[in-house]
Amino acid sequence: MTDCQGEGAKSPMELYEKLTAKGDEVRVLKTAKAEKAEIDAAVQLLLKLKIDYKQMTGQDYKAGCPPSENSVAPNNGPAADGADDEDTVDPWNVSTNNAKGVDYDKLIVRFGSSKIDKELVDRIEKVSGQKSHRFLRRGIFFSHRDMNQVLDAYEKQKSFYLYTGRGPSSEAMHVGHLIPFIFTKWLQDVFDIPLVIQLTDDEKYLWKDLSLEDCHRFAVENAKDIIACGFDVNKTFIFSDLEYMGASPEFYRNVVKIQKHVTFNQVKGIFGFTDSDCIGKISFPAIQAAPSFSNSFPQIFKGRKDIQCLIPCAIDQDPYFRMTRDVAPRIGYPKPALLHSTFFPALQGAQTKMSASDANSSIFLTDTPKQIKNKVNKHAFSGGKDTVEEHRMYGGNPDVDVAFMYLTFFLEDDEQLEKIRQDYASGALLTGELKKLLIETLQPMIEQHQERRKQVTDETVKQFMTPRPLNFNF
Amino acid sequence: MTDCQGEGAKSPMELYEKLTAKGDEVRVLKTAKAEKAEIDAAVQLLLKLKIDYKQMTGQDYKAGCPPSENSVAPNNGPAADGADDEDTVDPWNVSTNNAKGVDYDKLIVRFGSSKIDKELVDRIEKVSGQKSHRFLRRGIFFSHRDMNQVLDAYEKQKSFYLYTGRGPSSEAMHVGHLIPFIFTKWLQDVFDIPLVIQLTDDEKYLWKDLSLEDCHRFAVENAKDIIACGFDVNKTFIFSDLEYMGASPEFYRNVVKIQKHVTFNQVKGIFGFTDSDCIGKISFPAIQAAPSFSNSFPQIFKGRKDIQCLIPCAIDQDPYFRMTRDVAPRIGYPKPALLHSTFFPALQGAQTKMSASDANSSIFLTDTPKQIKNKVNKHAFSGGKDTVEEHRMYGGNPDVDVAFMYLTFFLEDDEQLEKIRQDYASGALLTGELKKLLIETLQPMIEQHQERRKQVTDETVKQFMTPRPLNFNF
Repeated sequence: MTDCQGEGAKSPMELYEKLTAKGDEVRVLKTAKAEKAEIDAAVQLLLKLKIDYKQMTGQDYKAGCPPSENSVAPNNGPAADGADDEDTVDPWNVSTNNAKGVDYDKLIVRFGSSKIDKELVDRIEKVSGQKSHRFLRRGIFFSHRDMNQVLDAYEKQKSFYLYTGRGPSSEAMHVGHLIPFIFTKWLQDVFDIPLVIQLTDDEKYLWKDLSLEDCHRFAVENAKDIIACGFDVNKTFIFSDLEYMGASPEFYRNVVKIQKHVTFNQVKGIFGFTDSDCIGKISFPAIQAAPSFSNSFPQIFKGRKDIQCLIPCAIDQDPYFRMTRDVAPRIGYPKPALLHSTFFPALQGAQTKMSASDANSSIFLTDTPKQIKNKVNKHAFSGGKDTVEEHRMYGGNPDVDVAFMYLTFFLEDDEQLEKIRQDYASGALLTGELKKLLIETLQPMIEQHQERRKQVTDETVKQFMTPRPLNFNF
Repeated sequence: MTDCQGEGAKSPMELYEKLTAKGDEVRVLKTAKAEKAEIDAAVQLLLKLKIDYKQMTGQDYKAGCPPSENSVAPNNGPAADGADDEDTVDPWNVSTNNAKGVDYDKLIVRFGSSKIDKELVDRIEKVSGQKSHRFLRRGIFFSHRDMNQVLDAYEKQKSFYLYTGRGPSSEAMHVGHLIPFIFTKWLQDVFDIPLVIQLTDDEKYLWKDLSLEDCHRFAVENAKDIIACGFDVNKTFIFSDLEYMGASPEFYRNVVKIQKHVTFNQVKGIFGFTDSDCIGKISFPAIQAAPSFSNSFPQIFKGRKDIQCLIPCAIDQDPYFRMTRDVAPRIGYPKPALLHSTFFPALQGAQTKMSASDANSSIFLTDTPKQIKNKVNKHAFSGGKDTVEEHRMYGGNPDVDVAFMYLTFFLEDDEQLEKIRQDYASGALLTGELKKLLIETLQPMIEQHQERRKQVTDETVKQFMTPRPLNFNF
């Protein structure tokens, strides 16, 4: 029985699995109406393991809920405090009942990440020698893991690399999809580091009712929009899983290594998978994890496995990287650091993430100036009052106004933004006027994006997507 | 509720999954002490689904036990007739309490395959125009799936290809490991068709306490012994998963396709996986399945997906291909046909399969003539009597005598073998004399193998393992 004792467990996860096994054993014994002495002995061991677990992790053992970084309730179900209006945030669902959007402070506590505070923003500014990006200044990238460690190393001339990605579920991308790429481009510019961008066409095939061919075609089309954000081909490698898996034994090796060190129990706890899910979904998290390790790209990092990875992404992708960070030390790799963004609200309001399948839920990168104008005027949820008179008297609510939220993302000038906020709140600025300001911001931005996208030829895409050395020495 | 009705299910597997889900629902309702009317309604639907299931599959629904070709009890547990001395046969365990070895007739019934009878052996002889291999004449390849279909097509000038493999768990291979390769070589010679050989180094990494590097090294070493069986480099492609996955987007695409169409419930039922198994094991069956489809090898079959595959393998590998055959029509590919062999017995007796980790359990391909002699004399389980007098009087039992079993595998001359059997059974041939006959058969065979293996250079291995066209037009 000693193999079931907590002392033998090297990590919280191992202890967690011993506990789960022992719990199953007790259940089986009870169901089988085993002798009382035998059941009692098993229960005693179970209690002993629970105490060990509490000592090792500082948390109570909870079945179906793995320890440490992965200690988020499965399916983001009701919190321990009994609140049933908890926001839902996982890679496939984001929803909240609050018009202001998800409660991100609560999410930081639940996910166990750290807030990006004024001090960290200042530090990034100092280390990079550049004014912080508006997404940092305005709390759009609001949460992180180990960013200080990345900066410590960078100050000591130890470089790092960036990894972000996109699931290509259709040809259409909307402005919200650009957020991680706009920010990643800024990070690449100020730190001058390599960037890898994963297009998970395999994931989309596994999750959606789409053919492999379509998913791969969407990946290539999406790559054009990503390239149009201005990435430097000498510093950036874009890859589709369906292509790169079949072109890099090193990438597959890391996938297998990760897959060996993650159990079904763990992905069940982290992602809420069930027994009816296909085995492709169940093993996919390893494929999103693998680019976090530099030796997945021997052509860029000369086979080195110790280059730190920094992942800018929306907070809904964090479950993948909690899992990755849990596995990393067990296979001898550094944990990736993370920068998390809030969600870009749908035109209809901040309660949900936008959907690429609903043309009216957002501004698409293919929209004409007229479409932009009509969509904003017709669909953007307003925080204004019902009549001009009321609005002038009581003022609007910028916190729930989607036009204002969008300006927070895209208007560069802090003072101008603050003035708009005040004027709207005081009633000096009417909803129509606010929307006009947004339209005037979006129209040239989208037009310029379309111009740049036109310049992206198939040849350019091929260059970005060819495994090759980048302009860095490792 | 209509989505839970059997009418909506297109395949037995879909119906099975609906049934499983409905069963879970009933359990949840009961546990939650739901209203009686609600529970009754759910139970009625469950019963209705069970009737649909029986109609569609001809079998009773059994939880945890997927339908059709995969209707083997999980873990090969006790049979329905209550017999608890059932043989255990799955890819990781083979055991029986019978000194004659596994009961193969029972296995055919349990696995739902077909016996290779005299008629089929004659037909193979007729179609190939060659005398049947001794493995066919002697029932060593004893079971098949769809072999007649392969022969029908071949007679109409429709070619097929061979696929077999090996899990490289160590450098050492024993004579038993050669059985599928000796037979596959014969099939290739008489039918003149392409052959692909998969070395599942990724599988060995996932299942064993070995490094990726060691598993891959074993794959390359094992390839040398396989090549030494005499395969034609112009007709044979040998690949390691760790290499080929990273060299062929088409192979990975088929893996993902298969992974999308197999659920955890299914692999749980077929392979006995549990929630504590790593996600690598859970998704691996798709990797062993993928070479069954010709478009996994575009370099050989010019992208064609309709070339029929024939898999010669030991019967313990059948679970992988039951799964493969279940998936094939759902992704538009032909089902692979199979030829199953019995197990090669350990020197100690036919109760278990040999182990590459126990040097005395078999004759290794690296054994010297002296080692062969000593091992046979010392370890080969004898069916002879305790004294010469008794043996002369009552005769020996060739059915449990390992030396005789080995001769069945390796002595070509049918008449000579039959005479040995009769003489041993009558007592005319003593155990020492029988063992001497085996030693004289094995020594030159192993020596010749070693000679041929010496000729296999790293360059030869590289040739065999390079993805390339073979000498066939498709």
